[in-house]
Amino acid sequence: MKPQKNLSILVRLWINNKTKPFLGKGRILLLENIRKHGSIRSAAKQMNMSYRKAWQMIEDMNNLSKTPLVTKRVGGKSGGGAILTKSGENTIKVFYKIENHLQKTASQLLKKQII
Amino acid sequence: MKPQKNLSILVRLWINNKTKPFLGKGRILLLENIRKHGSIRSAAKQMNMSYRKAWQMIEDMNNLSKTPLVTKRVGGKSGGGAILTKSGENTIKVFYKIENHLQKTASQLLKKQII
Repeated sequence: MKPQKNLSILVRLWINNKTKPFLGKGRILLLENIRKHGSIRSAAKQMNMSYRKAWQMIEDMNNLSKTPLVTKRVGGKSGGGAILTKSGENTIKVFYKIENHLQKTASQLLKKQII
Repeated sequence: MKPQKNLSILVRLWINNKTKPFLGKGRILLLENIRKHGSIRSAAKQMNMSYRKAWQMIEDMNNLSKTPLVTKRVGGKSGGGAILTKSGENTIKVFYKIENHLQKTASQLLKKQII
């Protein structure tokens, strides 16, 4: 590959537990939408995802984590909802830090083409 | 995200020219199959891809490269075929080196969770 202008590199990452998916960009967006809307149902709707699918994703993530990422909020005017735990917040943070680090590394590698 | 056992990380990358896709794992596999089979048609068949789609991908890659990655081989008993150029070989090599480097970096980041 000869040095070329205008090339850019895009990196995506998935964190898995053995064969089960644990985290990817889609799940991170789901967590962020739950934080924003305070409910799994609203978050799912926002993403054109079925409630069932969103709920299953959250269940899977919670089961694979030492501490749950999302917990249900009981009662209230809107009949409950869901909130991110501290572990959920930290998961988002760590995911983006890894992603940003890899994206930066990838761009440097492409630019230098030293490898 | 608390330290967890059995987590692994998978990285995928795409190299693009402005808005046009240039290289991804699928295209690299196509190049490798052309090297193996000596023809775009055979490579496409191997990958359950239409000849038209494979041909278009090669055209796009060749047009985005300073030097073509694949050239047609004229004549011969089988009525011609296609071969990788030196640039094509080098492209595969660079792609895997970037991918391996990123995969290694990603695994280290996840393991340390230092970021």
